[in-house]
Amino acid sequence: MPRYLIYAQEQFGTPASKTAHSVIRYSRQQVAAVLDRRHAGRTVQDILGFGGDIPIVDSVAAGAARGADAFLVGIAVAGGGLPSDVRETVRVAIEHGLDIWNGLHGFVSDDPELGSLARERGVVVHDVRRPPDGLLVGAGRVRALEQTIVLAVGTDANIGKMTVMLQLRDALATRGVRGRFAPTGQTGIFIEGWGVCVDAVVADFIAGAAEQVTIEASRGADIVLVEGQGSILHPGYSGVSLGLLHGSLPHALIACHQQSRKTFRHNPWLEIPPLTDVIALHESIATPLRPTRTLGVSLNTADLSDREARVAIERTTEETGLPTTDPVRFDPAPLVDAVIAYDRERRSELARRPAEVS
Amino acid sequence: MPRYLIYAQEQFGTPASKTAHSVIRYSRQQVAAVLDRRHAGRTVQDILGFGGDIPIVDSVAAGAARGADAFLVGIAVAGGGLPSDVRETVRVAIEHGLDIWNGLHGFVSDDPELGSLARERGVVVHDVRRPPDGLLVGAGRVRALEQTIVLAVGTDANIGKMTVMLQLRDALATRGVRGRFAPTGQTGIFIEGWGVCVDAVVADFIAGAAEQVTIEASRGADIVLVEGQGSILHPGYSGVSLGLLHGSLPHALIACHQQSRKTFRHNPWLEIPPLTDVIALHESIATPLRPTRTLGVSLNTADLSDREARVAIERTTEETGLPTTDPVRFDPAPLVDAVIAYDRERRSELARRPAEVS
Repeated sequence: MPRYLIYAQEQFGTPASKTAHSVIRYSRQQVAAVLDRRHAGRTVQDILGFGGDIPIVDSVAAGAARGADAFLVGIAVAGGGLPSDVRETVRVAIEHGLDIWNGLHGFVSDDPELGSLARERGVVVHDVRRPPDGLLVGAGRVRALEQTIVLAVGTDANIGKMTVMLQLRDALATRGVRGRFAPTGQTGIFIEGWGVCVDAVVADFIAGAAEQVTIEASRGADIVLVEGQGSILHPGYSGVSLGLLHGSLPHALIACHQQSRKTFRHNPWLEIPPLTDVIALHESIATPLRPTRTLGVSLNTADLSDREARVAIERTTEETGLPTTDPVRFDPAPLVDAVIAYDRERRSELARRPAEVS
Repeated sequence: MPRYLIYAQEQFGTPASKTAHSVIRYSRQQVAAVLDRRHAGRTVQDILGFGGDIPIVDSVAAGAARGADAFLVGIAVAGGGLPSDVRETVRVAIEHGLDIWNGLHGFVSDDPELGSLARERGVVVHDVRRPPDGLLVGAGRVRALEQTIVLAVGTDANIGKMTVMLQLRDALATRGVRGRFAPTGQTGIFIEGWGVCVDAVVADFIAGAAEQVTIEASRGADIVLVEGQGSILHPGYSGVSLGLLHGSLPHALIACHQQSRKTFRHNPWLEIPPLTDVIALHESIATPLRPTRTLGVSLNTADLSDREARVAIERTTEETGLPTTDPVRFDPAPLVDAVIAYDRERRSELARRPAEVS
């Protein structure tokens, strides 16, 4: 696994470095240092309130001295290319022999100077939004797996689908259950060190990419936790979400929701339907391929007070009849319990009816 | 509009040249000649039973002499590249000054020799599976259109979605209604001379590509007939189908079905659900973005006798309560009538409630 120097120049602690924050939260042991000259000399804990004593440095050299062997572009950028400051710092990182992990739409390996410099220095460039070669058209390949597959779905994009699966990953580990996270987006890929950005593949291969990630994640696992993307009702991303659902063929779903959000991300014209309707719709469109069941609700309560958050969770439990929690703010146990109980139930059913494995 | 010499070497009249047959059926006036040495000297009518006196020739020169100004690769090829025979004939076509229309996964303009030869001769290469630049993420842009939008959907891929919309295009024209076909796949693009292959774009842009095609087709039309792709339950292509549905935001649907087909294309493990379930599912997943209604059923009866076909149509009408026909084998009138009636009804409702245009 890589040891990252995370580039967040002039942006650490702001929404533009959300990727950096997630990698630190869910993959702390892989982060050697953060690069932001504004906060150099302080720790990640000082800025984010978590992350412990990971140092913030002001140069690639200082990051390498802290043990980094990889350079992660941990900021978001509007548009396609590599901003000149990113580009220049990547060049320095390559010269220091650091592998490059880049999730921007502009690819480091396509840059004539950086690409050839990386080859010259023997540095590996991971442009994680570049689709892998040899993807297949989806054809139900995950049916061959015995593992329990759980997918996070949501009433909108950017609502906590990656987060709940990473919380489940960590909580299952503490319970001694072999759960493995299947990364389908750039931040998840940085955290796990592998995966496929399913929204970056050619449209014909969305489900095939989801199959590939699910099958890969099943190795050494009993439960596969597939990172969701978008929403099957999002005007821009619904195709990705449905291809992911039909490629990963989950036995069970975790529904992600935010009560205060009334309209879809970047689409203020479109109201988010009631959570129960969205859950029913997911089950209807998944079931013809493989019957699926929603196990619980992951509520994003980041914009609520503690009291409001508890009320929201209680109301959602009543409305849906499902275990509900905000797995970051409160204990993820209700969802962890539901996943473990479902997995046991499924395995005991399979043991009773071995001929009908599905 | 181009005047095609259609390349179907050694394959004309076989399933491998299905693209050629469709272009001839729906765009006959644009076909100058067909290239297949096996049938040179005969007419298209001799081989297909339609197409009239379009000549079949044995060389690019003979096709150019018949008035072709464009060369269309009218065969399907397994895998990625350009087969050597295709490549060599494309080279000759460029030397004759013919524009190139290519729907294969291998792009002519990416071939170093052919690409530079084309530039040298001033020949335009249309690699129609190459996504256009500047695609946007879908965001409900077609809501600004006043036209009635109709989308063909299906219980499976390759079931007649393009065909029914082209039959409707032609039938609406004879009724004096301004309907325009919105091409979303390579054969439709060859027929209309423009369009976007929505299954070839990066996954994030499926709905955006569908919006672009729908908006473009609305110019000068009262009814937009959007070519469907795949099926929202197809294990490989459902993402494309849903992105197309949520990008084109149809007011109304035509459902395409084949009674004899029991399992999904290339997925014998998966049964096709009952037509009425598939219709209901489409309406459920479309309606949160824009209410939609299924106007009729286009039945593919190619594998049935005349008597069986009539029974199938009658049974489908009973099951669904919807106008049903096989628009190629029989009169498309039931569907044409349904579309025209829906369009009139919608316009009179809009006239009554101008503030609620949607």
